[in-house]
Amino acid sequence: MTAALGVPGPLSGSTRLYAIVGDPIAQVASPGLFNTAFRERSADAVLVPLHVAPAELQRVIDSFRAIRNFDGLIVTVPHKIAAIEWVDELGPNASLTGALNTIRKGDDGRLIGENFDGEGFVRGLASRGQTVTGRRVLVIGAGGAGCAVAHAIAAAGAHAIGLFDIDARRRRALVDDIKGHRPGLDVFEAKPDALGFDVIVNCTSVGMRTGDPLPLDITHLASHALVADIILKPVMTPLLVAARARGCAIHQGPAMLEGQIDAVLDFFAVRAPT
Amino acid sequence: MTAALGVPGPLSGSTRLYAIVGDPIAQVASPGLFNTAFRERSADAVLVPLHVAPAELQRVIDSFRAIRNFDGLIVTVPHKIAAIEWVDELGPNASLTGALNTIRKGDDGRLIGENFDGEGFVRGLASRGQTVTGRRVLVIGAGGAGCAVAHAIAAAGAHAIGLFDIDARRRRALVDDIKGHRPGLDVFEAKPDALGFDVIVNCTSVGMRTGDPLPLDITHLASHALVADIILKPVMTPLLVAARARGCAIHQGPAMLEGQIDAVLDFFAVRAPT
Repeated sequence: MTAALGVPGPLSGSTRLYAIVGDPIAQVASPGLFNTAFRERSADAVLVPLHVAPAELQRVIDSFRAIRNFDGLIVTVPHKIAAIEWVDELGPNASLTGALNTIRKGDDGRLIGENFDGEGFVRGLASRGQTVTGRRVLVIGAGGAGCAVAHAIAAAGAHAIGLFDIDARRRRALVDDIKGHRPGLDVFEAKPDALGFDVIVNCTSVGMRTGDPLPLDITHLASHALVADIILKPVMTPLLVAARARGCAIHQGPAMLEGQIDAVLDFFAVRAPT
Repeated sequence: MTAALGVPGPLSGSTRLYAIVGDPIAQVASPGLFNTAFRERSADAVLVPLHVAPAELQRVIDSFRAIRNFDGLIVTVPHKIAAIEWVDELGPNASLTGALNTIRKGDDGRLIGENFDGEGFVRGLASRGQTVTGRRVLVIGAGGAGCAVAHAIAAAGAHAIGLFDIDARRRRALVDDIKGHRPGLDVFEAKPDALGFDVIVNCTSVGMRTGDPLPLDITHLASHALVADIILKPVMTPLLVAARARGCAIHQGPAMLEGQIDAVLDFFAVRAPT
């Protein structure tokens, strides 16, 4: 039989420990996905949720240095940028984006942060037969996830990228940053308006709470456009509902997480026991 | 079907968190026992092992204050006495013994420590059809577990209790303490010698490591005596092997842990979701 999703193998005193930290935490899908993946790899490991407020993040990350069987941490909203401060070393994508979503403890006890969100988004698209290559993409939101997704979309060969964030300074900084890394690419500050784009990606949390407005004006959304959201819960955000009603292709949030599981497990060096 | 021992229910973002902290940790049985018990009670909860050295105990306990979905901690060797310092409040058995083996977080966030070792030992004996009532009992070891077991044996109506610890001051302090609480009871400092006792309880860690000597002289061990060990691994310590070879009844370590599961779950207020 197939065991239930999210159920780890039997726990014992020698089980290795992983966690996901966020605030709120009830909506996260990582415990389900990672515990299933650990069991599939016959790894004696478990991943648990940790509900931690921003002011307490440093204290909790530091305590992991003291827990010898603690090997890795998934970091989610709102900690992805702040967590940068509390690790010892950054991988290339965390350096590029100024945000991390994963921390592993090295053999020497050092904490190494990396960001797999962008790679996860692009891999998730590919797993659903979609692509950003050669297309005009509008990214809404330039926070931790938005930065990671925008950099990955640039790396994946988008034709042009428009960026919107309600914070003008943050929006401008991300445009400049991507331009600096990819001088030939057409990257620009955009309005929150679907007009002229054929891929829309919502990287804000707008749509997570009941009664949220749409994160952009979709009056001129083209019916051939692909509309993607990175929100995990609800899976069908108001934006995706509206896009589907117009006949657009849609792409749901959990794919970004599924798209990075293998990369994160490799980063954690989770292997079947020898 | 019966699910495998130690396997919790499916984990999600709303799973409540429990842990056992010790050094070493690989030998502990709590993850197996508690995760099975959580699943039997349909509780959305998981208990994980934490390997933490004595110098780091305070930092790890303090970090639990910051983890909102963390509800409780089992505390094992060598932290049972030191942990007293880092909680906000003690239950009656922890106050009596000066050691704790369980911490729960109250609704107000305060950490409350209690000790279920003694109750667990006496309940575990009863579950195997054994008793200390009316018998002459020798307790070897006056550390955290020894204190708890000796107080519980006194409460359970032993006829007399001899106490040995290699540390004379610790041995004397425990004798005085039990005498103070039970003025009528025959409690005295004893040698590590089975002569004259009909129940022997090893509460030291001697027997955990290969090549350990016996924790007492059993030359004069009576064949009608009951010999108990609280060591979890190996289940058959050299002391129990030698006692069985002489025809004595024996009592193994895991019974003490099993004997306190229900009491600890009640203390944690673990209930099936409503």
